[in-house]
Amino acid sequence: KECTEDEVSEVLKLNDDPRVHGVHLRLPPASLTSRVLNALKPEKDVDGISDLNMGRLVRGDLSKGFVPPRASAVMDLLEKHDTPLEGKTVLLIGGEGPFGVALQCLMERSGLVALKNQWSSKSLQSQVCACDSTYFTYFLCINPSVNHLLPVCLTGGCQHVALLLVLCSRWLQAQQYQPWHLQCLKLQPLTPVPSDIEISRAQTPKPVDQLAEEIGLLPEELEAYGRSKAKVRLSLLDRLHKQPDGKYVLVAGITPTPLGEGKSTVTIGLVQALSAHLKLNSFACLRQPSQGPTFGVKGGAAGGGYAQVIPMEEFNLHLTGDIHAITAANNLVAAAIDARMLHEATQSDKALFNRLVPSVNGVRRFSPIQISRLHRLGINKIDPASLTPQDVSTFVRLDLDPSKITWQRVVDTNDRFLRKITVGQASTEKGQMRETGFDIAVASEIMAILALADSLEDMRTRLARMVVGTSRSGQPVTAEDLGVSGALVVLMKDAIKPTLMQTLEGTPVFVHAGPFANIAHGNSSVLADKLALKLVGRDGFVVTEAGFGADIGMEKFFNIKCRTSGLRPDVVVLVATVRALKMHGGGSNVSAGAPLPREYIDENLSLVAGGCQSNLRKQIQIAHLFGVPVVVALNVFKTDTQAEIELVCQMAKESGASDAVPCHHWAQGGRGSLDLARAVNEAASRPSNFQFLYNIEMPIVEKIRTIATKVYGADDIELSPEAVAKIDYYNQQGYGSLPICMAKTHLSLSHMPDKKGVPTGFVLPIRDVRASIGAGFIYPLVGTMSTMPGLPTRPCFYDIDLDPVTEEITGLF
Amino acid sequence: KECTEDEVSEVLKLNDDPRVHGVHLRLPPASLTSRVLNALKPEKDVDGISDLNMGRLVRGDLSKGFVPPRASAVMDLLEKHDTPLEGKTVLLIGGEGPFGVALQCLMERSGLVALKNQWSSKSLQSQVCACDSTYFTYFLCINPSVNHLLPVCLTGGCQHVALLLVLCSRWLQAQQYQPWHLQCLKLQPLTPVPSDIEISRAQTPKPVDQLAEEIGLLPEELEAYGRSKAKVRLSLLDRLHKQPDGKYVLVAGITPTPLGEGKSTVTIGLVQALSAHLKLNSFACLRQPSQGPTFGVKGGAAGGGYAQVIPMEEFNLHLTGDIHAITAANNLVAAAIDARMLHEATQSDKALFNRLVPSVNGVRRFSPIQISRLHRLGINKIDPASLTPQDVSTFVRLDLDPSKITWQRVVDTNDRFLRKITVGQASTEKGQMRETGFDIAVASEIMAILALADSLEDMRTRLARMVVGTSRSGQPVTAEDLGVSGALVVLMKDAIKPTLMQTLEGTPVFVHAGPFANIAHGNSSVLADKLALKLVGRDGFVVTEAGFGADIGMEKFFNIKCRTSGLRPDVVVLVATVRALKMHGGGSNVSAGAPLPREYIDENLSLVAGGCQSNLRKQIQIAHLFGVPVVVALNVFKTDTQAEIELVCQMAKESGASDAVPCHHWAQGGRGSLDLARAVNEAASRPSNFQFLYNIEMPIVEKIRTIATKVYGADDIELSPEAVAKIDYYNQQGYGSLPICMAKTHLSLSHMPDKKGVPTGFVLPIRDVRASIGAGFIYPLVGTMSTMPGLPTRPCFYDIDLDPVTEEITGLF
Repeated sequence: KECTEDEVSEVLKLNDDPRVHGVHLRLPPASLTSRVLNALKPEKDVDGISDLNMGRLVRGDLSKGFVPPRASAVMDLLEKHDTPLEGKTVLLIGGEGPFGVALQCLMERSGLVALKNQWSSKSLQSQVCACDSTYFTYFLCINPSVNHLLPVCLTGGCQHVALLLVLCSRWLQAQQYQPWHLQCLKLQPLTPVPSDIEISRAQTPKPVDQLAEEIGLLPEELEAYGRSKAKVRLSLLDRLHKQPDGKYVLVAGITPTPLGEGKSTVTIGLVQALSAHLKLNSFACLRQPSQGPTFGVKGGAAGGGYAQVIPMEEFNLHLTGDIHAITAANNLVAAAIDARMLHEATQSDKALFNRLVPSVNGVRRFSPIQISRLHRLGINKIDPASLTPQDVSTFVRLDLDPSKITWQRVVDTNDRFLRKITVGQASTEKGQMRETGFDIAVASEIMAILALADSLEDMRTRLARMVVGTSRSGQPVTAEDLGVSGALVVLMKDAIKPTLMQTLEGTPVFVHAGPFANIAHGNSSVLADKLALKLVGRDGFVVTEAGFGADIGMEKFFNIKCRTSGLRPDVVVLVATVRALKMHGGGSNVSAGAPLPREYIDENLSLVAGGCQSNLRKQIQIAHLFGVPVVVALNVFKTDTQAEIELVCQMAKESGASDAVPCHHWAQGGRGSLDLARAVNEAASRPSNFQFLYNIEMPIVEKIRTIATKVYGADDIELSPEAVAKIDYYNQQGYGSLPICMAKTHLSLSHMPDKKGVPTGFVLPIRDVRASIGAGFIYPLVGTMSTMPGLPTRPCFYDIDLDPVTEEITGLF
Repeated sequence: KECTEDEVSEVLKLNDDPRVHGVHLRLPPASLTSRVLNALKPEKDVDGISDLNMGRLVRGDLSKGFVPPRASAVMDLLEKHDTPLEGKTVLLIGGEGPFGVALQCLMERSGLVALKNQWSSKSLQSQVCACDSTYFTYFLCINPSVNHLLPVCLTGGCQHVALLLVLCSRWLQAQQYQPWHLQCLKLQPLTPVPSDIEISRAQTPKPVDQLAEEIGLLPEELEAYGRSKAKVRLSLLDRLHKQPDGKYVLVAGITPTPLGEGKSTVTIGLVQALSAHLKLNSFACLRQPSQGPTFGVKGGAAGGGYAQVIPMEEFNLHLTGDIHAITAANNLVAAAIDARMLHEATQSDKALFNRLVPSVNGVRRFSPIQISRLHRLGINKIDPASLTPQDVSTFVRLDLDPSKITWQRVVDTNDRFLRKITVGQASTEKGQMRETGFDIAVASEIMAILALADSLEDMRTRLARMVVGTSRSGQPVTAEDLGVSGALVVLMKDAIKPTLMQTLEGTPVFVHAGPFANIAHGNSSVLADKLALKLVGRDGFVVTEAGFGADIGMEKFFNIKCRTSGLRPDVVVLVATVRALKMHGGGSNVSAGAPLPREYIDENLSLVAGGCQSNLRKQIQIAHLFGVPVVVALNVFKTDTQAEIELVCQMAKESGASDAVPCHHWAQGGRGSLDLARAVNEAASRPSNFQFLYNIEMPIVEKIRTIATKVYGADDIELSPEAVAKIDYYNQQGYGSLPICMAKTHLSLSHMPDKKGVPTGFVLPIRDVRASIGAGFIYPLVGTMSTMPGLPTRPCFYDIDLDPVTEEITGLF
């Protein structure tokens, strides 16, 4: 159907209306070639011809249903438009069919309001009424101040819709950086401090969409999971790419006692102080805890006392399912490995090929993932029929060596009986038994990847290149060789988005990823840090935490995480406790479950001084190796005396710390960390001079030696023959320029857990060397590392329950 | 601080204001004892004295933070008030502190609007302004038509807030049943029918909160998970408990071919027809699919063609994490079992007792879960010191017999190598190896419990009584004995809420639970059905689906699910296909992967007639055993001829079906199922005469025999000696009056998968009998049942991938 005269005259009016900056016509092809297109001024034609490709805005055809425009496409369009943007309006017209729903969706994402039936242009209204009434019942105006709505060109058929685009300054503004309007929650700490779950329950979190709005997130960037958690979309990075980053603060610790010294509470207390008391934008980026320890010995990880993430039970259980997604992805790889070995062992090349590349309706095709494998094998053929028998054999047989499979299964439960198991004992598996084991889910390489990936694309690449074992001829076999890597990305597509929560004082927190700190890098995700750095803005702070002591967590943060992310830290906060310092000063053994020896409860200045001179000083020096200023945060316990506190602060400053302050966040919340917040703010204003400890191109052995001697204080390293052989193999395979992720005890600077203070005169033994090729690091094993905790005789779960009426949880801590 | 004269006079004014039905004063105790309380008329005092316990509404103290009132508490309060409710108003005053946040929270849950700064009572305003301005900046009026706001009594101190309650008819109305205002999505089906994922992607789902509002859910009853899924809170059942249920329709099938005959698509097509075309409220209740088959052979389970749940990838992957929660809970039990056996094997009674009941700050206490165990053991003591050594030994030793542990671990992956494994082979487990295995997660007893529980309390009870094995002295050992049952409820607290999604035509769907259909009952959850029956209202329809053929899924639906829920079905829809009927009529073997034999593609009326006379007729008779009318739905394939279709419909009616109609939902969506929808509507208007097949108090053997002979058509049953011994044991333990859940092949009415049609003259062998005590059924094993599928040579995952730019998924079906 051709356009009517009326429609053409509407277009002509648009040509002359100075408020109209572009017209998109969605007409049948027949009409598009006719007078309408000629009538439209070229500079107002945003359809098809110009580079403002409206195909992206209105994808697909109405008859097939409508894919909603992505907000970023609308924004691109607005930005590319070369006329001034001031005072412009976007007008979208839709209906109740799929197109209407799509518009509603766009509207919702952009935070707009529908002005239903508020037509003020008579001619438009009459035209719309002439159309099929199932469309065109919504009229959306992005700028509500425009009461006089502009006329639109419509075709008569209900399947075609016209979009009039007049650009809107208000909408564009909303897309830019927004200053925070944070409404903090008041804390009124009680004495004595109640249990963590009681404190958490006594505070009502703000609705997460309110928090999101306060910190400048757009509704379209949020995916709520219940009322107190939401995933944040990565499109935020595109939107704010021009926005300068905030200050980047790492919280690390001195070598801890087995009881832990409170890095998480310091991190949370610090952001509570910065945001709620100093009114400086700040974000804490935390690791998601494993559920295993929550029900085992350790309990939760949401902080403690008056420095917590709330609701703490949501933080500690399931969260938004990321660890479950990792478990599912990890175990799909494992199932694929064993099933593939079985199928290869029981089928001929031809049978395997017929099944792997089946004839569907008489046509055989390789899937894209198979083409990738062929390409890696040097077989550059697309037609399955063209493969030689040798090609077929090479293609269908991964020929995995059962004794060289490095991939383990995982569960997020402390299940020690799965540490070493034999699988394949049912008769259906035809005798293909082998020994293997389960790790705790957070030890999966997929978790390490989640923490290091900086985009969906990057995660996909890393997942594909994960090496799961070696073929009998010594070739690495990857997840992509198994054909499973696409499915892994699909399983992980939501896990890549960080989860937004809040502290007890209503300040924002990202929870994302939580890789094991021994066999992996122990740091929360690069993406959460990047999103947070954009959100806090130039003068804001992002506080992130590294697992274990500074010799491990901080070293990996700098050499692995910062190298990957390109981010540069401004300040290190080094957490110390009088308890740990006394241990390093020569105090007797501290162990979980046993009562603390006397010297830890009474004042003992000489033990404290010993700890400051040894371990604290050394850890400060380690941070200075990387050129970053250090603020020492003394996490104060109620048994600490004033003299002890003052001694620590004085000696820390003498050892080179920019500042050293006591922190009372556990008992007082943010108010108790004000001195720390001021000290961090001050240190961050000084120039930092960050440098890596080693050049990535150094040989693997030299990188290991550098860490051992410069960070741990070893005289040298000693490689086992196994380690030497592995390093040779990795060099051969081209993995020589990956960074090093040491797997060493966190209870000593050395490899000997009972050597406290600053051990010297030792040679670091490297028992074995392994590689996480997908995550992108080599990990030397110093001693044996357990990757599966166990349950004690009386696990935490004995006290955990839920009131079925109030739904309140008890016993979590 | 005492109240001022002004405050007292405000109270006196409230006494005389007929629009004020109650006053809640939140004053310091000193003030409460003074003139204010005396000034207030008793009938308006809702604070503390009366049974309208406002403690529930305003819990805790402001100084400790504020717990938001639960909407149900507000409602209770409103309902209990004995004055007429018409024309009443609730007025809440808050501020920006925790109290303000709490009010905002309540407001949001109740869908109210804040009228900030819209004071119209001068005296109120001036008082408020005199207070600390951090409170009292919100002023909430539930009934916006009240422009003249009522005065409120306030104390001068900012920590104390007065609530004035004037009851509100509008709010109460919103709490009652709301008629649906469903905006359906238009479908414009294409020919040929595109792939499932293409169809799903081409349709934009409504935002889930919009769908929820359309079907009368309150905002407070919804927990969104992203934009297209939401959990629905069980409080809905309380709110609508007076609302009559809708009609209850079960979709079952004739004995299927191994390819499946489309019960899910029929279910979805039927609700699309009912809601979107006949404008009758309807809900589909579906099972959540296991992720194992999604990446294995079967693909997704969101329906197919133009009868789907959308977005299909959200349906098929993770959903809202319920299966992950089940996996976590199941495996926590498993870890607890093995760890406990290890600890018992390596510790004395005394050491175990000291660890299980540790001295904390010098005090020993049993946890509530331990007291439950003592109680079951007949040791009615509370003081740990009072136990005799014999008591201690009985208490600390579960004494599990490793050869009689029935609890298996689970993963939601098709991992055949885990079918039979040996665990505990690491040296840390001290030689305590044993053989065990993994099941697919949906085979967990916890999944069966989720599907049968009718409240959080009920789920808690069932989880606690799950039997995990037997002690050496032959006593059952439960999850509660392990001390883990409280933790299980905590892990499952969100999983118990059904997930709301929508069909391609925008009609509502609940997805909840998906227990295995062989070793469990194979039906979606009781709770989803109950919620849906309230939401659709008296004239609406809830369509739920039973796994496998009617001989299995429908029998279990009636005898197990309906017995538990108390719900009574109105109609059975029996799904048949020409393909399956031809098979029953004598057609040659149909198997997955192989091309269909000729007779299935060409017209063959005699084979069709054979199938109708045999299997179809028998399945109709089975439904009639329960007194429920049957509508046969012929799921039409493109190769079916008109003569074949007519023959099936005619013969089905001759066999006693109320009606029989062809369905074209796959190609046409709801429009293709209009005849079915009309037939169901008609059948549901007839009286149904439901009865159970057996009395629950019959002996176990008799119950099994009744099912075998009346449903399967066996001459008798034959019990193995093992089965006899187990039945004796279950009778001894008091499990004799549980219903029966047969574990039998679904490919034949008999136990022999290759016997099609209506096999006769056979004796059903019962190999073994097992029990799910938590879920509440006995399950006899007829033949071997695999509880862990495997991966084929080329699993589905080869084609699954995600475009990192558009985030579109490919390859799911």
